[in-house]
Amino acid sequence: MKTVVKQTIILAVNGGSSSVKISVFSAEQGQSPTQIAESQINGLTAPPAVLDYQRGGKTVVKDQEVDRKVKTQGDAFSLILDTLIKDDELPEVKSKDDIGIVCHRIVHGGDYTKPQLISEGTYHHLEELNDLAPLHNAPSLGIVRLCIEGLPSARNVACFDSQFHSTIPEHIHTYPIDQEIAHKNRLRKYGFHGISYAYITRATADFLGKPPSDVSIIALHLGSGASACAIRGGKSWDTSMGLTPLAGLPGATRSGNVDPSLVFHYASDVGKLSPASTSDLHISRAEEILNKEAGWKALTGTTNFGVIANAPADDKKMALAFDLLVDRICAFVGSYFVSLRGRVDALVFAGGIGERSDRLRAAVVDQVGCLGFAIDEAANGRKLQGAAVHDVGKKGVAPRVLVCQTDEQFEMARECAEDDEFW
Amino acid sequence: MKTVVKQTIILAVNGGSSSVKISVFSAEQGQSPTQIAESQINGLTAPPAVLDYQRGGKTVVKDQEVDRKVKTQGDAFSLILDTLIKDDELPEVKSKDDIGIVCHRIVHGGDYTKPQLISEGTYHHLEELNDLAPLHNAPSLGIVRLCIEGLPSARNVACFDSQFHSTIPEHIHTYPIDQEIAHKNRLRKYGFHGISYAYITRATADFLGKPPSDVSIIALHLGSGASACAIRGGKSWDTSMGLTPLAGLPGATRSGNVDPSLVFHYASDVGKLSPASTSDLHISRAEEILNKEAGWKALTGTTNFGVIANAPADDKKMALAFDLLVDRICAFVGSYFVSLRGRVDALVFAGGIGERSDRLRAAVVDQVGCLGFAIDEAANGRKLQGAAVHDVGKKGVAPRVLVCQTDEQFEMARECAEDDEFW
Repeated sequence: MKTVVKQTIILAVNGGSSSVKISVFSAEQGQSPTQIAESQINGLTAPPAVLDYQRGGKTVVKDQEVDRKVKTQGDAFSLILDTLIKDDELPEVKSKDDIGIVCHRIVHGGDYTKPQLISEGTYHHLEELNDLAPLHNAPSLGIVRLCIEGLPSARNVACFDSQFHSTIPEHIHTYPIDQEIAHKNRLRKYGFHGISYAYITRATADFLGKPPSDVSIIALHLGSGASACAIRGGKSWDTSMGLTPLAGLPGATRSGNVDPSLVFHYASDVGKLSPASTSDLHISRAEEILNKEAGWKALTGTTNFGVIANAPADDKKMALAFDLLVDRICAFVGSYFVSLRGRVDALVFAGGIGERSDRLRAAVVDQVGCLGFAIDEAANGRKLQGAAVHDVGKKGVAPRVLVCQTDEQFEMARECAEDDEFW
Repeated sequence: MKTVVKQTIILAVNGGSSSVKISVFSAEQGQSPTQIAESQINGLTAPPAVLDYQRGGKTVVKDQEVDRKVKTQGDAFSLILDTLIKDDELPEVKSKDDIGIVCHRIVHGGDYTKPQLISEGTYHHLEELNDLAPLHNAPSLGIVRLCIEGLPSARNVACFDSQFHSTIPEHIHTYPIDQEIAHKNRLRKYGFHGISYAYITRATADFLGKPPSDVSIIALHLGSGASACAIRGGKSWDTSMGLTPLAGLPGATRSGNVDPSLVFHYASDVGKLSPASTSDLHISRAEEILNKEAGWKALTGTTNFGVIANAPADDKKMALAFDLLVDRICAFVGSYFVSLRGRVDALVFAGGIGERSDRLRAAVVDQVGCLGFAIDEAANGRKLQGAAVHDVGKKGVAPRVLVCQTDEQFEMARECAEDDEFW
């Protein structure tokens, strides 16, 4: 009997508020996929947007300004798809029909615990989730819509940033509010960055030589959106984001946790709809203030945390923003250490800032030293290359300090490739 | 030369949303005062209110229903004052003129770092603070007003629940929001329960036989309002409440920290003024929901935490509320342990629940056992009597677990008696 090996091309699509990133994978059913190309368009909200394209680890296009008509996530997706199809040196994608699976990163997945096949008939389920996170889900939905219509031979799969956190126990994910309203309006801690945490968990387990189910870590995904996660036996036990990505740590323009009554003392009429709202998207002025006009940009003027971390010591604004973030991160590390009852294999840094700022890592690990973590300064200062996980902890100390180069697109493609439902 | 010893009577007044509590102290300038009587009226919001009165440790009046006309904090104050003056066995208070100092607990003190003498001329400073905490300051101000007018020979002193926290460093008390608006609208972490934390710090230092400046503790004031405080070298270093008492731990009817965007998904028009607002008090519907319609009452139907802690194990609602509170408390203990860099002399429980619920103490200490805390079950189960501080920690373990019978009225009277400015 002959076994037919099924192979296809998977596109992993990551649409942000002003960018679209697509990774192209060659995949075989049930196997870990292989990335063959990657492209992104940045700056959609400040045209002209710019295109980057790498194939087989080689840069093909760098910072190329694109037509000013490229404004939406859908425009960007179409342009990238065109770029892939027209590239003669990418024979795997000669036409749209070569693409078997498109997996889409969707921020808010409500109660979904795993990726979902999306069809014309189930698309409205995704639209319903918009109520919970209008600021975050909308950018991706335009692309999903486009793929359903424009790539009829591909299967579309929604991968949710919240799905990894469906294991958080009830007493941790419950808000102490009227439970009837909580259930009706679906108000609970969901958590986000879950695609990244799934990658981090697996990569850390590989690095430590244990099965994921034996691994307990405190993971920090620190980027312009930042969160922390307590992972117990390979599963999410707690995370810092909540009903929406606003809760928890500050971000580039997000406040993170603040007194819930603060915004009512910040401006009048914060309950009113923001001018950015549309008939479909209801965004209060309060949510706009706390998501878009706060964070370290509000403290320093820059969204670039690298500038903050490397500012001269006498720049008080920069020092305040740096110290504030370290304080808030360490608070979560301390609380998750307790929540995991001290059984922690590693503190893992990931995300743009977690991977790049050795100064931030050093400051955090210094402050949480009383929990047994310690850094190796030389290893921490070294530029990361190659492997997904790097050990920057001090030799001979039990709980490790790791840096993980997380890869959300790979994680999405892997989940799709390994799940027979999507073949 | 003859030194004249100045003596007087101090009333310490604690006005809550539906109660007024007054302790009467005999005081000598510069010395710790001595309580001679105590009276309270409860149930102002559900008439008839009831009066209790103890003199010299003896119960004189217990649960006596009072005239239904006694509705406001001012009414209650006047009735208690009358009770004191008419009591022949309290010769120290024969008339209003015997009262030298009235100290008032005021929840929100803005930037005040110490108690303030209030006069007709400075009363408006207190009114200005109303904007920051309309729900919390208003009950006390009626009594202050009454005393200024009705007790012309007494000095009125405002003691603020926030003043103890004025030492919290900038990177901890700052919210990552637009700093111009933050300064203009005075938006920062203030913290509350500070009169209690000042008492706890001093009592713990006495108990440990160290000066307060050498004492670092994690203190938990757990009552129908609940908070945690990291105290470093006798001073507040961080606390869980924020701009208002809403932030941090859940309370009987308070949500504590929730996703700041949650309330906008809870109901529409939450930015509108609540019907409870007056021309002076602007309370948004959102603040009312999160302060008055949340907390463990929303989870279980009762504000009485004792009922929750002692419910049968199979009562899922009660178990959820209990586990949720333990989780949130332990998160603060973990984060403050890190913030104090592991140098913690004791974990101190106080407040109605902290002092009375051995089950809660046992559950919290069990979960934070990985930080080195351990409980002595027999000591923890014993009824507290006499001394202000009781050690319930396991013998031979370094960081202690203590229970402190906190006394806000005593602390206020002490601060006034020891400060020459008020004599």
